[in-house]
Amino acid sequence: MAGYQTNLRLTLPLTCVILEVILIILFAVLVEYDHETDAKLWHKHLLQHNDSNYNNDFYYRYPSFQDVHVMIFVGFGFLMTFLQRYGFSSVAFNFLIAAFALQWATLMQGFFHGMHGGKIHIGVESMINADFCTGSVLISFGALLGKTSPVQLLLMAVFEVTLFATNEYILLSILQAKDAGGSMTIHTFGAYFGLVVARVLYRPQLDKSKHKNCSVYHSDLFAMIGTIYLWMFWPSFNSAITAHGDDQHRTVMNTYYSLAACTLATFAMSSLVGPGGKLDMVHIQNAALAGGVAVGTAGEMMLTPFGSMAVGFLAGTISTLGYKFLSPVMEKKLKIQDTCGVHNLHGMPGILGAVVGAVTASLATREVYGDGMEDQGVRQAISLAVTLGMALVGGVIVGFILKLPIYSGPPDTICFEDAIYWEVLTALIALPFHPGMRQLSENKKYL
Amino acid sequence: MAGYQTNLRLTLPLTCVILEVILIILFAVLVEYDHETDAKLWHKHLLQHNDSNYNNDFYYRYPSFQDVHVMIFVGFGFLMTFLQRYGFSSVAFNFLIAAFALQWATLMQGFFHGMHGGKIHIGVESMINADFCTGSVLISFGALLGKTSPVQLLLMAVFEVTLFATNEYILLSILQAKDAGGSMTIHTFGAYFGLVVARVLYRPQLDKSKHKNCSVYHSDLFAMIGTIYLWMFWPSFNSAITAHGDDQHRTVMNTYYSLAACTLATFAMSSLVGPGGKLDMVHIQNAALAGGVAVGTAGEMMLTPFGSMAVGFLAGTISTLGYKFLSPVMEKKLKIQDTCGVHNLHGMPGILGAVVGAVTASLATREVYGDGMEDQGVRQAISLAVTLGMALVGGVIVGFILKLPIYSGPPDTICFEDAIYWEVLTALIALPFHPGMRQLSENKKYL
Amino acid sequence: MAGYQTNLRLTLPLTCVILEVILIILFAVLVEYDHETDAKLWHKHLLQHNDSNYNNDFYYRYPSFQDVHVMIFVGFGFLMTFLQRYGFSSVAFNFLIAAFALQWATLMQGFFHGMHGGKIHIGVESMINADFCTGSVLISFGALLGKTSPVQLLLMAVFEVTLFATNEYILLSILQAKDAGGSMTIHTFGAYFGLVVARVLYRPQLDKSKHKNCSVYHSDLFAMIGTIYLWMFWPSFNSAITAHGDDQHRTVMNTYYSLAACTLATFAMSSLVGPGGKLDMVHIQNAALAGGVAVGTAGEMMLTPFGSMAVGFLAGTISTLGYKFLSPVMEKKLKIQDTCGVHNLHGMPGILGAVVGAVTASLATREVYGDGMEDQGVRQAISLAVTLGMALVGGVIVGFILKLPIYSGPPDTICFEDAIYWEVLTALIALPFHPGMRQLSENKKYL
Repeated sequence: MAGYQTNLRLTLPLTCVILEVILIILFAVLVEYDHETDAKLWHKHLLQHNDSNYNNDFYYRYPSFQDVHVMIFVGFGFLMTFLQRYGFSSVAFNFLIAAFALQWATLMQGFFHGMHGGKIHIGVESMINADFCTGSVLISFGALLGKTSPVQLLLMAVFEVTLFATNEYILLSILQAKDAGGSMTIHTFGAYFGLVVARVLYRPQLDKSKHKNCSVYHSDLFAMIGTIYLWMFWPSFNSAITAHGDDQHRTVMNTYYSLAACTLATFAMSSLVGPGGKLDMVHIQNAALAGGVAVGTAGEMMLTPFGSMAVGFLAGTISTLGYKFLSPVMEKKLKIQDTCGVHNLHGMPGILGAVVGAVTASLATREVYGDGMEDQGVRQAISLAVTLGMALVGGVIVGFILKLPIYSGPPDTICFEDAIYWEVLTALIALPFHPGMRQLSENKKYL
Repeated sequence: MAGYQTNLRLTLPLTCVILEVILIILFAVLVEYDHETDAKLWHKHLLQHNDSNYNNDFYYRYPSFQDVHVMIFVGFGFLMTFLQRYGFSSVAFNFLIAAFALQWATLMQGFFHGMHGGKIHIGVESMINADFCTGSVLISFGALLGKTSPVQLLLMAVFEVTLFATNEYILLSILQAKDAGGSMTIHTFGAYFGLVVARVLYRPQLDKSKHKNCSVYHSDLFAMIGTIYLWMFWPSFNSAITAHGDDQHRTVMNTYYSLAACTLATFAMSSLVGPGGKLDMVHIQNAALAGGVAVGTAGEMMLTPFGSMAVGFLAGTISTLGYKFLSPVMEKKLKIQDTCGVHNLHGMPGILGAVVGAVTASLATREVYGDGMEDQGVRQAISLAVTLGMALVGGVIVGFILKLPIYSGPPDTICFEDAIYWEVLTALIALPFHPGMRQLSENKKYL
Repeated sequence: MAGYQTNLRLTLPLTCVILEVILIILFAVLVEYDHETDAKLWHKHLLQHNDSNYNNDFYYRYPSFQDVHVMIFVGFGFLMTFLQRYGFSSVAFNFLIAAFALQWATLMQGFFHGMHGGKIHIGVESMINADFCTGSVLISFGALLGKTSPVQLLLMAVFEVTLFATNEYILLSILQAKDAGGSMTIHTFGAYFGLVVARVLYRPQLDKSKHKNCSVYHSDLFAMIGTIYLWMFWPSFNSAITAHGDDQHRTVMNTYYSLAACTLATFAMSSLVGPGGKLDMVHIQNAALAGGVAVGTAGEMMLTPFGSMAVGFLAGTISTLGYKFLSPVMEKKLKIQDTCGVHNLHGMPGILGAVVGAVTASLATREVYGDGMEDQGVRQAISLAVTLGMALVGGVIVGFILKLPIYSGPPDTICFEDAIYWEVLTALIALPFHPGMRQLSENKKYL
């Protein structure tokens, strides 16, 4: 660990406390319950509109919110536990940065979405949006997994949430783009931002930790918990903030069928390119989800079920092939060390989703939707370009900020290792899950 | 592996791609959004009926759908991870065949449930029904677990879904039987179909893989994830497609109490018959769920809470005793190798549920329900007979189709083993959970 | 095991069967569907009020119920699997006593909440209340984890549910206190009851089982499943039985922000007090949840988002410090062996929640809420005192009842060990997770 200061005792408590104190102060000054959450305002509304408590939007958004919440904390958290010796950090740092990001996102998005008399109004919809923004940060985390300290991750979240909210504002409010499931705002942005940060933080000696940068039997099963939850609840994710009624209903169905088709494509491709025709857990854990990403924009449109299936099938194919052929090239040639392969799961499928959205919007007719969507295709295409630009430029800047050696980051030789930040009883205990076992007899000190 | 061709490289990609292409074409030709999912139709409906988006049935079915979805993918998937070296296959083949079956079921059920001008109309209710049909296939999978290739399983799903839809049509539409939770259509059909297929695929040399056909400590904990999710969401399963209002409310309650009573029965019986009074994880993982199966038909009726509890208690008792005493006999005498014991969890409790349904329906009076249910008991009883007949005949035919040696199935000596289809890092890694155990007696010091 | 009779064959089946038979009889005599669950009553209601099935309260409570249900069975169940050799017992005894307690609670709470013509009426709200009461029993279980037989636990549940219902009645009906999320009724009561029982059951020789009273790598990951589910669904827990409309909406938001702030505090404190600045999984698994406990009473009030965050931050801080500094002292000085540290997660944060509730209620004005809450603060404070009194006195009595040597409890030397009650294949299997590994080097053949 020569030259490295990985002790968190000073840096992490300081970062957490300062950030949370700032959040509490800003919330005190700026944030108020919205008219469906505030006792007085809601009771006034009930009287004035002769409305019913059952019509509080809570009942029509909260189940979707909880599904999204599960995706953020269980889905992303456990998906990343696939590493043999990084399970604590995966699920717990995911937990930490998500808990921070959702608070910060409430402020940033509230700021951009329009203040009410100098106040940000919050309710169930702002909670969903905050979770969405958090998802983007967690995607970037996936590219950096195992190579960063929690302090770096929190700092990244501070900047990324801010950029996310700005980009989202440009897309949804200025360009009037449609992107309810976030193919662009969440997936494309999060993936390319994270990839650029990973590029800037390139670790030339990382192969010294290579033996830990892989899974073991049970860590792969833990990761499947994440995969399955993401897969099941993706229909809720894509539909969580679409308009009520047919839009939400349709988005759910399109996503459901896209994912199902994507899964078959993933198994087909994984076996096709695997040594001896064998399946690879990495593909199943990740590429089977690309179908959800790829209908993130067009899911709410009249994509039709078979259209969704075709898109999902394509996404699963691209994603699996990306894991097999593209990721190794990106690491060697572009020096991008993408731990979770977010380029394959969120990057390419996100762009595919943006393109499908632009095309579908272009083909939309007044007759089908009942109202016009002229120029929508063009606005969608511009939105993709803006998103990529924001991610690349933002990623470079934030990457260099994170590169400073003051955040207790791990050295190249001890990446992908919980013991650096966690009290792990002994190295020995986890050893059976670990190839290091070959050297066991040489490690008498453990015994 | 003499004579066995277990390489999936040709068979699996081909099967997946052909099936998915057929699905996409059939969806393109036959499937349309229903009036609550289609933009134009729903907006027209809103105008004509002065209705509200909040009354889209999506809001009253989707939470139940998601619970069912969790049962299908997490519940069934993780329940089957109990085998020490078959966790990847359990959760991932479950994933694959469910993703296929739900698409195929959409078409088959749509075809039988009535076409609209030559088109199948889909919405949240068809999604629930498709998941239900998928559940039946997964039950059959449980009987075959560890002994079949994914290609065989996909092929089985093609046939089983078709037969399921036919049987369901006969029961619900022709015989006008009630079976909202699928005691007959899902559990009885899936179990006996799977058992017959297992009988036809009997492997005389299977005891050569016997040392892998058992659990290890952590695989049993993974399986409990499946159990608990199935148990918790079973009320949603049984009520997901019952009529709105009191029916749905009542079905949930009956299932809740049935399962609670079943759990106490299972612990009681497991300890009673266990060596030294010790509990057996197999019973807890499976038999505690029998209470949900057994009120699948009568759950929506006025079964009363104590009636539900009595049925659940009985189901848990039968199921536990089945695992202990019946399964070994079935394997020896009937040559049915039932890996997960689906006969105990779905077969017998399914029949019990059908009988309870027939009796409850017979006892129903106009006074209690507000409308007549004459002859309902008889129709319920006939339905059970039809279901058993369909399962047995269908199972024999499909079993012989699956017996052809062209599907990359495993040899008797390498059943219950992930390494045959999956890239597993090394045998070493998983060894602690494993057979190494054969040498146990030599390691006296551990004992 | 000298002198100890740990065989469950007689005691457990007998206890389960007797309890369940009593339950079934009492349900038959006393319990009826309520007017939203009973076919005849609901149809009558529909006609009389020209109401819609969509307005059955089922649709506005059931999603919350299911979230609570997940917390009870997955949350509590898996949180307790952190022990290396007690995973089966943790998740399965949790399952057993919860399945019993929810039935018994239906009767006890129904009795106190008011009978209707000699009958207890049940529906989705009674199911939520029964799950809440169950939660309290599971909190007490946490203090006793690893040191009691399932028979003792069932017996404890019989008494604790009864006391819980009595205390709840006094607080909510007589004192008219507010405590929707159960800071007092559930957390404070459950924790102090359990701690007193643990005190009475003090095991002087427990350090002979000390090597098993800790986690291993993968058991900590299983526990995180519990933690994350508790954390995510706590907003549903606190809001599940609040009034519909703004109350439910607001409670969810307050809990969401309290938990987020609590998580940052927990990471900060854990690193601050950890050796070498390292984080401790025990803190993350538990203290990060204290924010949910601490807004259990005030969550439904106009606590404001920043107020919730401040409370959550404080709760996380207290809880983490409690784990670090207070628990060891309580064990040494007070002879309270609190396996899960429920004092830190439920005890102190519960009291904090009660105090916050009393203060917030005192500050409430007619203007903010639209109706008066005079004296509410005083009633809240008295409620806390009553709860503590009930827990302490009740815990002493029940503790002595459980101390009788007739319940197959484990000896001090074999606590925290599944093998005593479960068929575990061999000691070897679990060995890799286990200190026995010290002898590994002698087993060269495995390497």
